[in-house]
Order: sequence, then C-alpha cells, then structure tokens
Amino acid sequence: MSHTMRVEIWSDIACPWCYVGKARFERALADFPHRESVEVVHRSFELDPNRAKGDTTAVLTMLERKYGMSRAQAEAAEEGVGAQAGAEGLAYRTKGRDHGSTFDMHRLLHFAKAEGADRQDALIAALYRANFAEEDSVFDDDERLVALAAEAGLDPEAARAVLADPAAYADDVRADEREAAELGANGVPFFVLDRTYGVSGAQPAEVFEQALAQAWGSRAPLTVLGEGAADGPDAEACGPDGCAVPQA
Amino acid sequence: MSHTMRVEIWSDIACPWCYVGKARFERALADFPHRESVEVVHRSFELDPNRAKGDTTAVLTMLERKYGMSRAQAEAAEEGVGAQAGAEGLAYRTKGRDHGSTFDMHRLLHFAKAEGADRQDALIAALYRANFAEEDSVFDDDERLVALAAEAGLDPEAARAVLADPAAYADDVRADEREAAELGANGVPFFVLDRTYGVSGAQPAEVFEQALAQAWGSRAPLTVLGEGAADGPDAEACGPDGCAVPQA
Repeated sequence: MSHTMRVEIWSDIACPWCYVGKARFERALADFPHRESVEVVHRSFELDPNRAKGDTTAVLTMLERKYGMSRAQAEAAEEGVGAQAGAEGLAYRTKGRDHGSTFDMHRLLHFAKAEGADRQDALIAALYRANFAEEDSVFDDDERLVALAAEAGLDPEAARAVLADPAAYADDVRADEREAAELGANGVPFFVLDRTYGVSGAQPAEVFEQALAQAWGSRAPLTVLGEGAADGPDAEACGPDGCAVPQA
Repeated sequence: MSHTMRVEIWSDIACPWCYVGKARFERALADFPHRESVEVVHRSFELDPNRAKGDTTAVLTMLERKYGMSRAQAEAAEEGVGAQAGAEGLAYRTKGRDHGSTFDMHRLLHFAKAEGADRQDALIAALYRANFAEEDSVFDDDERLVALAAEAGLDPEAARAVLADPAAYADDVRADEREAAELGANGVPFFVLDRTYGVSGAQPAEVFEQALAQAWGSRAPLTVLGEGAADGPDAEACGPDGCAVPQA
C-alpha cells in the first residue's frame, strides 16, 4: 500500500516560527524518499483572532507592549528570530515590519486552495516572503494582497472579490481554527501527519525527517469491515467487470 | 479529542450500487450520534474509464453485451436493483436508462468540491437522481449537466467552462482513481473512514453503523513527536500569548 500521506500545517502569516518551521519541514520533505506521495495542506490559525482589520502596529511596538520589553530587548528578539531565519536561507527584516489582522490572508489562502493545492502553496510562500522580507506592509492594503494572489497564479479580479466580501471563506478559516483546538494545538506552527502524528513548533529538520519516516512506516492497510463476514451478505458492488446481480 | 472524522466515498454515477449504498450509508450516518463531526468527501471512480465521451448505449443493451444476457435477463437484473433502490426510498427507472462516459461528471464534481463540500454533496445527489430516476439522459448533453450544476448552487457559466475544457479537473479525477487502486478498491462504492477502516459495496445500513462506531471509537490522540524530548530543543512556536524568544 502506498497511498498519499497527508501533512496538515496550521500556521499564521504573522508567525515568524511558522515561516522558519515551514522551511525546516520543506528541507526534511525534500530528502524524504516518498515525497511524491506527500500532500501538504495549509490550515488557518490566527495568533490574534480578535484583532480587527485596520488595527495594525509596528512589530517592535507590539513586542514592547505585549512583553513589557524595552526597545532594545524587542530589537534583540527580532534579531534572534532573524538569525534563525537566515540559517534557513530566508530573508528576514528585523526592523520596520508590521503586525495586524491576518484574517483576510487566511480567507485568501482558502480561496487559493479551492483553485488547487499548488496555488495555495504559491500564495502562502508569497505571503510569508512579503510579510517577513519585503518593505511594503501586507496589512490593510487589499491591492497588495491582490498582487500577491496574482503572482501565485490566481485571478486578480476573483481575489479582489474575496477580499471585498468579509464572509467569503470565513467559515473555512474558523473551521480550521476549531479543528486546531480539537487536536490540542495551542500554538503554531503545528504539523499533523495523517492525523496520527503531531509536531509542534519550528523543530529542527531532523525531527521532521523522523516524523515523516515514522508516519510513513506506521501506515497500516485498511481494516475492511462488513465484507465476507460469516453472517454478512455478499457485497453489492460494481467493478470494471460489471455489477453484482442482486439475489432475490 | 473530538476532531472531525473523514469519510471518503469512491463511486461512479453510472453505478447502481453506489446510488443504493450512498442511501444506506446516509441512513446510518443520520443515526450516528457524532454525525456533526463527520466530513464526507466524494471521490471519483469510473467503472468504464476507457469509454469515450459520446459512446453511449442503452443500459439493457450494455448488459446483454457485457454478460451475454438475454433481454429478459437484463430486464430482470435491472428490476432486482430497482427493488433494492425502492427499499431505500429511491426512485429507479429500470427501463430506458443510458450507459456512457462519466468522466465529465467526475470533473464537474471536483469543480463543485472546490466551491464547497455542500455544493459537491448537492451535485452528486442531483446527478444520481438524474441518471437513475429521470427520463432525460445525463450523457452527451453538456447543457443537462450545466442545469444540474446550477440546481446544486453552482454558477452555470463556470460549470459550462469546466465541461468545455477536457483538461479541467481531469488530474483530480485520475488522482482519485489512482488512490482507489492504492487503497485496494477494485469496485465501488468503496467507503474509507479516517483512512483506517474500509467498507466495500452497498452493505446494509447496520454495517455502516458499525463502521462509524468502530472508526470513531478507535481514534487515538495524536502522538506528538520531537517535543520535550530529553535531548530536543524547546519548541519554537507562537501562540496567543506570543512567540518563544530564541535562545542565543
């Protein structure tokens, strides 16, 4: 049996460890012998689900307020994350970034998913790069998001319509978040392999390698129920050779 | 833990036992106490994948040719399936139905899925009803399929565009079929619960009830890897209270 293995990644665009963890996971996946049989699905998780659209602050200011850090401490924290990002070959602007609501980005990622897994992959990569490595803010600028969606191969007009309608794909975002809670995820990134193994945080690539190998190795064939049971009926089914003819 | 249970149903619109089996499964699901946590996904399986669009014959003629049945035997076979359908409260026309390529219907079902699980549910129900219970053929009539798609809440213009482009969603259909083979399904309907339990054929509702209960009961919490290991690093993650600050 060699069916597809499914890796779900809960993350937020505003989460630096998600940006770093994704790169580490992808490094592990690139070395995984069965990578062609791995399907990756991105799931929504807002670090700050109550933050309203438009309520945007500088990341450094947010760190000062949230942790009571001095400006120097906030800058040092960002430098630390930036160093880890750099070690993964990722660009990271430690100064001048914004923090705000990511709800619209998650809605857009669900729209992208509906257009195909490759579109969603391309969009999340574009959003991370834009938020962590580029100067223009991704917050409160629908046209910036439309341009990133277009870059990911999506129809700009359709992306604009999604952004303009706050209800579009909102239920999908909420459903992902509910499911994260049900699975026991309190933070992100959170990786779930075949709904069997979980990896929490931006673990080293080696941990992801181990998780992929372990999840792959522990896949069991399906337990087929109801068929051939001593008192069960013959299966009524159709196959390439035709359909079972009912017994009167 | 109460995360969503996923039931995948491989089936073909041209498969009478899929029509009957779906009704039996739905009866079991309606009685299942955790039905609100069950997600149903329809997967493609063509009984006759090599049949070209336009190569349509009467079902009774197909039965005569495929099984060397007499016309009376073919009619009796259809009457038999019709009786089982009737026992599930399903209308079933035992005479005058067509058999042909279902590839376009599967492509359309993937389009519907991209628009939302409820759209796919509505479309598959409409396609079954049209094929098994209504006089107009569902084969070789794109406008008939467009009307059914519209009835399922899909944009008729978009559905028409999908039908007009033979490549649209074709890979999704093939991927489902490949996966069915990998999971060991030789015929349909084939039900897979959480990728752990399988049910083959239009089994009685009681078998589906048992399968739902068994799959639900055997769901284990995630095995979390990499976290808190003696020699592992602290998880680098972000949560509602902020992000882990990197250790230099």
